[in-house]
Amino acid sequence: MPKLSISTTGIINSSQGNFDAREDLLAVEEPLEIRLTFGDLIRKEMPLMVTMRTPGNDFDLVRGFLISESVISTNEDILRISYCKNVIEDELGNVVRVELQPSLVFDSKKLQRNFYTSSSCGVCGKSSIESVINHCQPILSKVKVGQEQIVKAPEKLREAQRVFNHTGGLHAAGLFADTGELLLMREDVGRHIAFDKRTGAMFERGMKVAGHFILVSGRTSFELVQKCVMVGVPILAGVGAPSSLAVKLAIEANLTLLGFVKSDSFNIYSRAERIVN
Amino acid sequence: MPKLSISTTGIINSSQGNFDAREDLLAVEEPLEIRLTFGDLIRKEMPLMVTMRTPGNDFDLVRGFLISESVISTNEDILRISYCKNVIEDELGNVVRVELQPSLVFDSKKLQRNFYTSSSCGVCGKSSIESVINHCQPILSKVKVGQEQIVKAPEKLREAQRVFNHTGGLHAAGLFADTGELLLMREDVGRHIAFDKRTGAMFERGMKVAGHFILVSGRTSFELVQKCVMVGVPILAGVGAPSSLAVKLAIEANLTLLGFVKSDSFNIYSRAERIVN
Repeated sequence: MPKLSISTTGIINSSQGNFDAREDLLAVEEPLEIRLTFGDLIRKEMPLMVTMRTPGNDFDLVRGFLISESVISTNEDILRISYCKNVIEDELGNVVRVELQPSLVFDSKKLQRNFYTSSSCGVCGKSSIESVINHCQPILSKVKVGQEQIVKAPEKLREAQRVFNHTGGLHAAGLFADTGELLLMREDVGRHIAFDKRTGAMFERGMKVAGHFILVSGRTSFELVQKCVMVGVPILAGVGAPSSLAVKLAIEANLTLLGFVKSDSFNIYSRAERIVN
Repeated sequence: MPKLSISTTGIINSSQGNFDAREDLLAVEEPLEIRLTFGDLIRKEMPLMVTMRTPGNDFDLVRGFLISESVISTNEDILRISYCKNVIEDELGNVVRVELQPSLVFDSKKLQRNFYTSSSCGVCGKSSIESVINHCQPILSKVKVGQEQIVKAPEKLREAQRVFNHTGGLHAAGLFADTGELLLMREDVGRHIAFDKRTGAMFERGMKVAGHFILVSGRTSFELVQKCVMVGVPILAGVGAPSSLAVKLAIEANLTLLGFVKSDSFNIYSRAERIVN
């Protein structure tokens, strides 16, 4: 039932003043709705959210999203994930139902507050950081990663991006071992969605996180650092620049944050002791 | 009261195996809350949303956001925009109050539905496109823009990105005349936020849109095409790739969509008749 992640389209290419009609490939973008079934004696169902995403690894996305929003904390909190069948034909493959364990306590009001971001926790960088720190474990990993492993990572991520090579339209998030080995990679038109897919796949496989690092193809915002801290991966590297609040949160949460990762250089913004010669 | 849009931080640069401590610049990311005052005889105030953004041109952002969400349709729908003063010190400059004209009919429930995207309008690309088409005027502009104006635009946008040149961390959205002149440019750590800032600035100046084009520094998603269609600009160009749904919406809405814009080439995905030799 999964939908295609690439589609074709007719385009006109303009090159050095000449027009040329041809076929081209596009990364697919389609909405995905997540529905949640929860409760013990009385089971309830609620629509959790709708997001745009590139079809593919949808269950990873759902799992990763629920983990980074603290709805679940282990794989066992999920009873089952499946595509809804009681929808119209066009929606088949775009609606996913997650059945939580009856024993799991789930407060839908608390989650709504997180999503729709009210001012309940204050509207400043300091309070944004505090609200993350209060919801996660400090990162204590003593892992050391060599500079060489970092600068080689972007090329490994690109190599793995088969779809990217075709359409040029997808963000990627890769999980690497401290040896530099690319363990898994996920893609999406959305930067955060690619990240959540990678988190979900990592969790499903029960991977240890303390000795690993993550590389993302774009910039690192507050939200991406937050997602990284929530799952306890000790090093986050971005091909692009971090924001001021991303750096501040990384410092507070004990995360090593790297930016502008190229084939021969990068910047270290926090916890430099995890990067060695 | 506006906050700074750049901050400094100590970093360690790793280059060809050597570590080197230095100061570096970061694009600032801070939350912004928009509060709305509306109603005729009885005035009500409600928090509309909180978003991360780079401080600077906050009122443009608010204006552009309200336009692309169809809360307002003219400049006159806004009575006043100001920073809230009855907040704690750290929040000063991060909370904006918009006072709508008492005569303006505002349905807060409808807006909430748009934001939090329920499945009320269906969870498939087709229904996503229909919901935009039903809310906007078709684009009828007969403007013609030369290929040369398009390929020269990225360099003009980069030139105007003074902040970008310092931090490397900001997205940009520029409004260009059909002659290729860059009329205005706005930046942000967020792609959509830069776009909304540009829309707001354009509206505040009462600019005609039918003869203009927009260039954005990144990819073009469904949401960016939607924002462009809502304000009636006939040509949207991206330095990166469009998604499948961005192309489909552009075709349905009569928008000319361009992608992979470089110094000597680009792709045309829809309504090619507006691009000439």
